[in-house]
Amino acid sequence: MGHALALARRGLGNAWPNPAVGCVILREGRVIGRGWTQPGGRPHAEAMALAEAGAAARGATVYVTLEPCSHQGRAPACAGALIRAGVARVVSAMTDPDPRVAGRGHAMLREAGIALTEGLREAEARDLQRGFLTRVLQGRPMLTLKLAGSFDGRIATASGESRWITGPDARRHVHMLRLIHDAVMVGGGTARADRPSLNVRGFGPVRQPARIVVSSQDLPDLPPEDADHGPLWRLSGAPAAFMAELAARGVTRVFCEGGGELAASLLRAGLVDRLVGYTAGLALGAEGRPAIGDLTLAALSEAPRFRLTGMQRLGADIVHFWQRD
Amino acid sequence: MGHALALARRGLGNAWPNPAVGCVILREGRVIGRGWTQPGGRPHAEAMALAEAGAAARGATVYVTLEPCSHQGRAPACAGALIRAGVARVVSAMTDPDPRVAGRGHAMLREAGIALTEGLREAEARDLQRGFLTRVLQGRPMLTLKLAGSFDGRIATASGESRWITGPDARRHVHMLRLIHDAVMVGGGTARADRPSLNVRGFGPVRQPARIVVSSQDLPDLPPEDADHGPLWRLSGAPAAFMAELAARGVTRVFCEGGGELAASLLRAGLVDRLVGYTAGLALGAEGRPAIGDLTLAALSEAPRFRLTGMQRLGADIVHFWQRD
Repeated sequence: MGHALALARRGLGNAWPNPAVGCVILREGRVIGRGWTQPGGRPHAEAMALAEAGAAARGATVYVTLEPCSHQGRAPACAGALIRAGVARVVSAMTDPDPRVAGRGHAMLREAGIALTEGLREAEARDLQRGFLTRVLQGRPMLTLKLAGSFDGRIATASGESRWITGPDARRHVHMLRLIHDAVMVGGGTARADRPSLNVRGFGPVRQPARIVVSSQDLPDLPPEDADHGPLWRLSGAPAAFMAELAARGVTRVFCEGGGELAASLLRAGLVDRLVGYTAGLALGAEGRPAIGDLTLAALSEAPRFRLTGMQRLGADIVHFWQRD
Repeated sequence: MGHALALARRGLGNAWPNPAVGCVILREGRVIGRGWTQPGGRPHAEAMALAEAGAAARGATVYVTLEPCSHQGRAPACAGALIRAGVARVVSAMTDPDPRVAGRGHAMLREAGIALTEGLREAEARDLQRGFLTRVLQGRPMLTLKLAGSFDGRIATASGESRWITGPDARRHVHMLRLIHDAVMVGGGTARADRPSLNVRGFGPVRQPARIVVSSQDLPDLPPEDADHGPLWRLSGAPAAFMAELAARGVTRVFCEGGGELAASLLRAGLVDRLVGYTAGLALGAEGRPAIGDLTLAALSEAPRFRLTGMQRLGADIVHFWQRD
């Protein structure tokens, strides 16, 4: 299942609107098929792994990070494909909460006489599927908020200068995070001030994330959609509304890169699931631009709190990860 | 020498106005004496180690983290004591820049026919002696600036509420840092708002750090000096002036705990050697109190920069360490 989870991660930012799933088929202790959800969501992981295994799948054991689908969509359902291939055993990490599946995939396998084990490494699978789960269960994408700033939490000088506070290792890490999200979001002020490219650079040809600018005002010309730039969407209104709109468009994972006002509005609305902080060893002082705008907290107990999940050194800077449970 | 450096660390915050030195005496591969600078600076590390070794010191090898002193002070000079004890070899990590020594201790040993090796693990010894070196060479103590704040660099809510942003592990770590500094410093605003105890708690009976309040205005009543509280000094004026005054009082290591205005004035004056950041997983927003006041930077290139030296998890928070080279 560890191997299947690692394969599943390849689909993050790539598989949407479908969940990023991984699948490994074993026979007599040897891997005979490996699959992960392909760009845009098709083929599914199981179909890819079965295609690789071929006739050897008969009697084999299948590890899959999410319950196989039971509903015929653009392609035949995966549960049916596993049954037709004659596999002997399926080990699944978690039930698919999608109402079109919701246990029916597991039930189909069991009824066909396949030995089924559910819930292996479920916590890891749920963590990996968080965007998909948030979309299905809450009708909004998962949101990761980035803050790249000085030791004292400033993202630019008073005059707006921000190149460069963090170093090249941190900036490359930001591109990696864009890559594993479906969409990159900024506020209108940031779009006007920085005219950001909001694309992934330095990782070869990739599926570029959608670009979201939240603004009700005029925007500068940003590059049109092409091989190096994802679709450009302009949204406005209340955070809960534009997040619902993104879920309707199939987005499961959003990476918000500021500015401070957009970050504050998302935090106030309780829509931030994860924080990623890049901290550089310099001080910019109180006149510098704050990473997060006014939260209008009446007391410390009202401050949104997040749990530390990791930290590492990135060249001259540090990065730290937090999430809401 | 690693053992001697570890012993030397016991004197940090304790040995001032003297440097914190460690000494290990070896004979035929066995440790026969260990010493470190005692509270208030006497006895010296070498005297303590020689007392433990006794007559066995004859022909032994001595590891010491700083050049033995050559000047007769309240006690006989250590170089002379090593010569009288008949040691065969001395390994020293660094020359003492104190003008009363400045190589004369090493010269005395060499003239007495003792085999001398200088500079072993010198970088570590200099790092450990940084406060003493800064005092002797620059006429001011080393200064460590603490920032304990939210993910977005705020040390309190708009109303001043700051208990508790960081958790108990981080707070205990702060007390450990107070313990290894000679003095703890705050600005007048912090003293008036928080009436802080500025002492070390939770580490048993210790030499309490001096308490420094930088303010030209009235101060609230703070506890008088006693077993649980170090001397209370009120200073004011320009940072360079009060730092010189502290050096004259023998202080080598100062731990500044804010507030933002004092932190900014020290940074602007280029008097901050080390930064310690405690970061908690919560957001307080732009209306929260900034960790560092206005620096009046004209450009990003003017921002004071520090080098990362370490980071670790502390319960639910992180701590990160930076220094100026």
